[in-house]
Amino acid sequence: MRFDVVSIFPEYLAPLDLSLIGKARKDGLLELAVHDLRSYTQDRHRTVDDTPYGGGAGMVMKPEPWAQALTDIAEKSPKSDGARPTLIVPSPAGEVFNQKLAYELAEEEHLVFACGRYEGIDERVLEWAADSYTVRPVSLGDYVLNGGEVAVLAMVEAIGRLVPGVVGNPESLVEESHSDGLLEYPVYTKPSTWRERDIPEVLLSGNHAKIAKFRRELQLRRTAARRPDLIEALDAAALSKTERNVLWELGYAVEHGKVHKRPETGAN
Amino acid sequence: MRFDVVSIFPEYLAPLDLSLIGKARKDGLLELAVHDLRSYTQDRHRTVDDTPYGGGAGMVMKPEPWAQALTDIAEKSPKSDGARPTLIVPSPAGEVFNQKLAYELAEEEHLVFACGRYEGIDERVLEWAADSYTVRPVSLGDYVLNGGEVAVLAMVEAIGRLVPGVVGNPESLVEESHSDGLLEYPVYTKPSTWRERDIPEVLLSGNHAKIAKFRRELQLRRTAARRPDLIEALDAAALSKTERNVLWELGYAVEHGKVHKRPETGAN
Repeated sequence: MRFDVVSIFPEYLAPLDLSLIGKARKDGLLELAVHDLRSYTQDRHRTVDDTPYGGGAGMVMKPEPWAQALTDIAEKSPKSDGARPTLIVPSPAGEVFNQKLAYELAEEEHLVFACGRYEGIDERVLEWAADSYTVRPVSLGDYVLNGGEVAVLAMVEAIGRLVPGVVGNPESLVEESHSDGLLEYPVYTKPSTWRERDIPEVLLSGNHAKIAKFRRELQLRRTAARRPDLIEALDAAALSKTERNVLWELGYAVEHGKVHKRPETGAN
Repeated sequence: MRFDVVSIFPEYLAPLDLSLIGKARKDGLLELAVHDLRSYTQDRHRTVDDTPYGGGAGMVMKPEPWAQALTDIAEKSPKSDGARPTLIVPSPAGEVFNQKLAYELAEEEHLVFACGRYEGIDERVLEWAADSYTVRPVSLGDYVLNGGEVAVLAMVEAIGRLVPGVVGNPESLVEESHSDGLLEYPVYTKPSTWRERDIPEVLLSGNHAKIAKFRRELQLRRTAARRPDLIEALDAAALSKTERNVLWELGYAVEHGKVHKRPETGAN
């Protein structure tokens, strides 16, 4: 899998040399190049921005340097069979990045990331790029960053770790938050008593079925407390009798294949 | 405002030396220190992890080094009046980070970030830390990262830029995505015709009221297309007659102070 990142702050992407992603690059599992947008400018001041048409605060990124950079990268794309690379434009106005999208993008051969700064990139670049790319504005979440660079660090990490071989133990991927629609259970390690705090006794029992049931119940309780939206999005068909009972106790009912808050619990 | 970050990969946080956040630190608007968790270990191998109780894939972060680090940081907290610093623990199992939470945390004097790695930090650390910190597990979004470091880069950037003086032009903060519950309008800069693509004509009119109306309509259309959840969360009382008409045309009605999808439009 290949990633190309275009930015006016290439040094921001240095963390991609570290840890699991850095190792996957050294091992040849991921290929990643960072391009300085300014190297695609033609004037001696290497200008990348100008004032917005129609007025307003801040500056807008000029279209031409982007077109130069994206043409160069598309021409060198490993997708030689005529398939188009995907252009991700991090933007708080995009579709929301989540684990499902991470899995979807991890199937791609070639992802290109365009890091906007200031008030954003001239909108015509996205229309123009649709000739050679599948263009997707994507938001890391409902908050505002100073530019796309940190969003790219997060997306490359979330996508890259799903590429086979990047995470040493593939079981780790199965057990984590959002893989089953629930939040993770709490974890504990030695010592079993630490600063007068004991771990839950069942974890010392060696009874794997009992431990699995205990953890699942904690997942349901924690998700109901912190993220009721995830409970209501659960696939009811996949819930066991015990899980339905726990949900009932937490104020939810399973009806018509859906999980919903029971009215008599006085929700809100 | 002061930030402390604890991590086993301190070099991951290097981007916080750059750009707006780096400048704000040099200008003394933000104080930030990164601490290596391993410097709080006592054994010669500087061990920070061990196997999980109850079994399962991966390793869990040992509680004692965290307690040592968090005690040290709490003792040096600038909150001398007995008020407690806030401990943010990035975790996909936490409450969801958004612009509202960014504004709330930007009001704090002292934020401490604990970057978990592997399967996470021993849960007892969070209970124990509640004696000296306000503890908040926070999720950057519904996706899984390799560790908390990238989440901290994003949160520090989103929070730090709201501190007065960090962003040069405070108007930029007012006009951006999520500040009014809608996605941003598209932006354009020179030339007005680029690669045969024209900017919307109204932006050249010089008529500020007309431009504002045009942009607002684009915001509503874009938000309805990409994020209908945000449309249904709008404060109906703040909507003008024109905005209500645009929403009607997009298939929404305003009733009882709420915006909802009109049934007759055959939603879904």
